[in-house]
Amino acid sequence: MAATMALLKKMEKGGGVFVDSSKWKRKSLVTIALTFLTSSQSILIAWSRKSGKYDYSVTTANFLVEALKCALSLLALAKIWNSDGVTEDNRLGTTIDEVKVYPIPAALYLIKNLLQYYIFVYVDAPSYQILKNLNIISTGVLYRIILKKKLSEIQWAAFVLLCVGVTTAQLNSSSDHVLQTPFQGWITAIVMALLSGFAGVYTEAIIKKRPSRNINVQNFWLYVFGMVFNVAAIFIQDFDAVLNKGFFHGYSLITSCMILNHALSGIAVSMVMKYADNIVKVYSTSVAMLFTAVVSVFLFGYHLSLAFFLGSTVVSVSIYLHSIGKIQR
Amino acid sequence: MAATMALLKKMEKGGGVFVDSSKWKRKSLVTIALTFLTSSQSILIAWSRKSGKYDYSVTTANFLVEALKCALSLLALAKIWNSDGVTEDNRLGTTIDEVKVYPIPAALYLIKNLLQYYIFVYVDAPSYQILKNLNIISTGVLYRIILKKKLSEIQWAAFVLLCVGVTTAQLNSSSDHVLQTPFQGWITAIVMALLSGFAGVYTEAIIKKRPSRNINVQNFWLYVFGMVFNVAAIFIQDFDAVLNKGFFHGYSLITSCMILNHALSGIAVSMVMKYADNIVKVYSTSVAMLFTAVVSVFLFGYHLSLAFFLGSTVVSVSIYLHSIGKIQR
Repeated sequence: MAATMALLKKMEKGGGVFVDSSKWKRKSLVTIALTFLTSSQSILIAWSRKSGKYDYSVTTANFLVEALKCALSLLALAKIWNSDGVTEDNRLGTTIDEVKVYPIPAALYLIKNLLQYYIFVYVDAPSYQILKNLNIISTGVLYRIILKKKLSEIQWAAFVLLCVGVTTAQLNSSSDHVLQTPFQGWITAIVMALLSGFAGVYTEAIIKKRPSRNINVQNFWLYVFGMVFNVAAIFIQDFDAVLNKGFFHGYSLITSCMILNHALSGIAVSMVMKYADNIVKVYSTSVAMLFTAVVSVFLFGYHLSLAFFLGSTVVSVSIYLHSIGKIQR
Repeated sequence: MAATMALLKKMEKGGGVFVDSSKWKRKSLVTIALTFLTSSQSILIAWSRKSGKYDYSVTTANFLVEALKCALSLLALAKIWNSDGVTEDNRLGTTIDEVKVYPIPAALYLIKNLLQYYIFVYVDAPSYQILKNLNIISTGVLYRIILKKKLSEIQWAAFVLLCVGVTTAQLNSSSDHVLQTPFQGWITAIVMALLSGFAGVYTEAIIKKRPSRNINVQNFWLYVFGMVFNVAAIFIQDFDAVLNKGFFHGYSLITSCMILNHALSGIAVSMVMKYADNIVKVYSTSVAMLFTAVVSVFLFGYHLSLAFFLGSTVVSVSIYLHSIGKIQR
């Protein structure tokens, strides 16, 4: 009875149950796309390390990623304009009022990336891998505070488990170093987690603010500011290298593949923000991490540890709990 | 409104809310006692290893534990007879019908202990520590099947997490050996887990079958059969050693402490079976394991690993989920 009422309510609102089913399909599709793109991203990075070439400027690559995302958004828009014509929702033109908050996520990411150099004064590389998982918790907390969306008690428990499970799956012989992290290291790690969590949640707020606005227009403007801030990053971090060795120094086929992959996963992230949320994004990238480890067994002959199996089980239980813990509305 | 109804129902059944509150107190008390006794048990074992003396016959010690438990049950009964007089529920006399199933748990434990020697052909000591945690899962499954008590979906998830969390907390550099366990090792470990789970659940079934029967009488008869089966174990495993070096060879002050501790924790286990259940027992001994590790830091200067903190978090979340996941009756 209650279910029928809910269904009727949905039909009134959405104009049919089919809308809900197609929404669910789109949500699943972008989530799966993000998971696979993130998995292949780590594999490409491992591959590029394997072949020993890793001496290009990361900032120039990041700039190219933003530029490529801009181009791809324009391409998608051109296609839409051709079929549907230009409307209020898909026109490229914008107002100061619409885009004034768009630089904020890009600025936050820039600060976070600069802190990344600073944190290595206090923290070694294996510890950094562990501390990065604080991201999961900060995203959950900021999602609750900024977007004012509630998670149930069970979903909070699931979120803590996701963070612990991912960390457990990554455990190796040097993981215990993290326990010697000095106070400044913890503070920097927490600030970085908050910055990246805030950037993610803020992007979702921007994209969701105008639900009817075409996602490709929203992306285009987000990526324009991404390009601007990455130019700043090139000047701050790699100005000398670019000046002396050239913009494309150290690029290889694999670098191009990585740039393409980053661009596509960036777009997938935006799509997940539009049609799902940051929580789905965090789950998706966590599952991608587990996928990567399994695929690496076949590609690079890695061994899976007991910790990996234990961590994967915790992540699986977390996903299960998240799905059964949905707040009934 | 629903809560008030439930309360009224309880009052009708139990003759007052106070009964429920005192039941809850008793349940908490025996659970805390079990946790602390189990913790000190592991610490005593570590201590006895530290001092290097560990060359007594384990079977003779087990026999003395059963004998001491018998004596303590009789002592408690004598006190009750003095104050309340002998009643149908607390008289020591019994019938074949009452005690005919009592030898079963003791027999199961004997078989399990004999298999313990056999499993070391296939499995090394660190792997055995890991595989012992299969106990948790087997207890949950047999609890469901034999006692026909339902756990909610969330409680099942919590139970899987308990097993994974305890294992994670125990991870060390040699834990990965368990992944090389041959098929026979897995089968033996699973059989052992089922035997010990079955013994635990069956003991609960025996004790709970007659709720009004005094627990000390039930314990007395359980422990009598425990003594009988441990005599068998002495003959099977340590006959030569006892014959040549004497029954008490290798005993020290610490051995006596361990025997006293085992006897008291054995009685606490029975109490938990009577007033709580096997699920509470499993949680209690898991928490005891974590306590032991923390106490060992102070006593023996051990270090806590990142895996320990991750595992402890999973166990804590599991306890939380178990408590909020209670099936509403």
